[in-house]
Amino acid sequence: MALKFEIEKTLPGADGVPRARAARLTLPGIGGKSHEVLTPCFMPVGTAGTVKGVTTGELREMKAQVVLGNTYHLYLRPGHERVERLGGLHRFMAYDGPILTDSGGFQVFSMAGLNKIDDEGVTFQSHIDGSRHRFTPELSMEIQRSLGSDIVMAFDQCPPYPATRDEVMAAMRRTRRWAERGLKIELKPHQQRFGIFQGGLYEDLRVESAREITELPFDGFAIGGLSIGETPELMQKMAHFAAPLLPSDKPRYLMGVGRPEDLVECVRGGVDMFDCVMPTRNARNGQLFTSQGKVNIKNARYTDDSSALDADCPCETCQLYSKAYLRHLFVSNELLSARLNSVHNLTFYLRLMTAMRAAILENRLDDWVKTFYTKWNTEKSGVSGT
Amino acid sequence: MALKFEIEKTLPGADGVPRARAARLTLPGIGGKSHEVLTPCFMPVGTAGTVKGVTTGELREMKAQVVLGNTYHLYLRPGHERVERLGGLHRFMAYDGPILTDSGGFQVFSMAGLNKIDDEGVTFQSHIDGSRHRFTPELSMEIQRSLGSDIVMAFDQCPPYPATRDEVMAAMRRTRRWAERGLKIELKPHQQRFGIFQGGLYEDLRVESAREITELPFDGFAIGGLSIGETPELMQKMAHFAAPLLPSDKPRYLMGVGRPEDLVECVRGGVDMFDCVMPTRNARNGQLFTSQGKVNIKNARYTDDSSALDADCPCETCQLYSKAYLRHLFVSNELLSARLNSVHNLTFYLRLMTAMRAAILENRLDDWVKTFYTKWNTEKSGVSGT
Repeated sequence: MALKFEIEKTLPGADGVPRARAARLTLPGIGGKSHEVLTPCFMPVGTAGTVKGVTTGELREMKAQVVLGNTYHLYLRPGHERVERLGGLHRFMAYDGPILTDSGGFQVFSMAGLNKIDDEGVTFQSHIDGSRHRFTPELSMEIQRSLGSDIVMAFDQCPPYPATRDEVMAAMRRTRRWAERGLKIELKPHQQRFGIFQGGLYEDLRVESAREITELPFDGFAIGGLSIGETPELMQKMAHFAAPLLPSDKPRYLMGVGRPEDLVECVRGGVDMFDCVMPTRNARNGQLFTSQGKVNIKNARYTDDSSALDADCPCETCQLYSKAYLRHLFVSNELLSARLNSVHNLTFYLRLMTAMRAAILENRLDDWVKTFYTKWNTEKSGVSGT
Repeated sequence: MALKFEIEKTLPGADGVPRARAARLTLPGIGGKSHEVLTPCFMPVGTAGTVKGVTTGELREMKAQVVLGNTYHLYLRPGHERVERLGGLHRFMAYDGPILTDSGGFQVFSMAGLNKIDDEGVTFQSHIDGSRHRFTPELSMEIQRSLGSDIVMAFDQCPPYPATRDEVMAAMRRTRRWAERGLKIELKPHQQRFGIFQGGLYEDLRVESAREITELPFDGFAIGGLSIGETPELMQKMAHFAAPLLPSDKPRYLMGVGRPEDLVECVRGGVDMFDCVMPTRNARNGQLFTSQGKVNIKNARYTDDSSALDADCPCETCQLYSKAYLRHLFVSNELLSARLNSVHNLTFYLRLMTAMRAAILENRLDDWVKTFYTKWNTEKSGVSGT
């Protein structure tokens, strides 16, 4: 069963290249229960079988369309075979919407203890207990097959930033060989495969890697190797360069991005799908995203602020509570703090994508972006007066 | 405005004394929005303006009837005057049901740093920052008035356990003097006052303290000084002795109790209202209460257990998730663990009270208790086989 990707509208960028798109992605789903995903979309990250602090019921209420699961984490704990015995990841975490799993590649390079990469795979130590493990492109597919996700990501090598041209080229070549090996592993009928291309910040390598990966029979493509330490400007510039290298008739996914401004700029660049831990991680640290800009809720200026966090937001946090209450929960280290903050930040990210989609469909994206930035900079400039 | 307390049914104990009651408590409520509380009832503890990990929407869904707030905590942070400026505790925490606040007495003796008690009041150090503060019976009333709770508790002196007869007597006498002083402080029109009597485990002192306190014009009465370190058997024995010392036509509240078995036994003894941190605190530690007994969810036996935590329970945790998932969340230290566990444990406590109320009304409490213990001991005896 193959996904369907129907583009409803494409807008040209300032450079005349077709870029921002609104599309309808149909995933076959387990047991013929197909899922429709309206893009551009943001996918909340549910690392270890839970989007931290929120339930899947809340994710549905906030209209999350796809949830991401991390192969590395689920392999280590509770174990992919256990998840499969328990009915698969959807059932395990009580989420009947689409799930995308990453390949585990990024985590073994960035999170795990000492890792050793060779052509066959990667040996690494668990960040939980130091135990030694080995991932190969084949095992990554097998793990994701057991998890039963709807979208399976190819196992790639993401070079660090900064990296020399030779290092990036080697990783890119290996990523291509690993992509081919992964494709030989059969998945479940409902599962779709996305390839990942690399090339760091080297335009010629991006061109070459995109060509090498897009000639393989993937159902969608991801831009890997960005948002790993380079400046947002460099990231955005490369995303703009990279997006049009991918086929226009398949979904384009920019992995690990990013700040609200990054989502805005990369949708403009031609990206359809995003994921990032920022809304939930920053929520736990008290940094909240609002239509008026960022709010550090621990700031003493909110101690007596009886106003809602974001008057424009329909989420429970904004409808029921004051900034003073949210600050109180944060400084008191109350469990409810991370929860209410996460519900809000995710709602903000999801509504940002919905608004951009509407603006694309109605051919008014540039105006929408101007208004977004004007409001977004309110809090920074102190104009809001709160 | 006064509360109404209508007894629907009273059952005699084995000793022939009228004991277990089902009643209907009507609280006037702010702005004439009256509240009905069906007793016996359990009141979830929302120490610092939040029942840890759950929202007030969830509390309503699980049919919590009264939420408890802690005067000591709210005075220190965010401050009762701030809560009042922000519209009172109900509005601050977005809870429109009845709130009971304790007096702060118990916390200054048990939680605060070095405290010094004299006839006038108690000087203590904040457990948060070590700052020095002083509570008097008058200030406790003023704080609770600012918070705007529906039920205000008298400021009492709870002697530690064990304590000599002389210590207990001195605390009891002071509790009486403090009760009278507190009564001179005017409250808001919707607020009701409960007196607290002491006397430790000394029956004659309990008789004397109950007489001294019940002759004062309180709207309800609490048994203080229990569940502070004595064995459950001694606590239950004294609660049985103490409950009938209180007027039968006013609510009887046993403070800080307890385990499910304690609730069962003390309802049988004639108590109407309870509060305890146990359901939420134990939830955070992975100890769950089910109709089959206690479950330590971190136990390895649940690693592959695809069954629901409690097949008899209608809560979201039991309806959507397996024990294996709950164990995974706990061992992974996921935020969702405390939340799902708390929702379940509170639901269990609240349903326990509802079931006892029905059994009292239908004059089958003894049978209900027998069935409760048979099921409750299933997990312990390993009969359930899970």
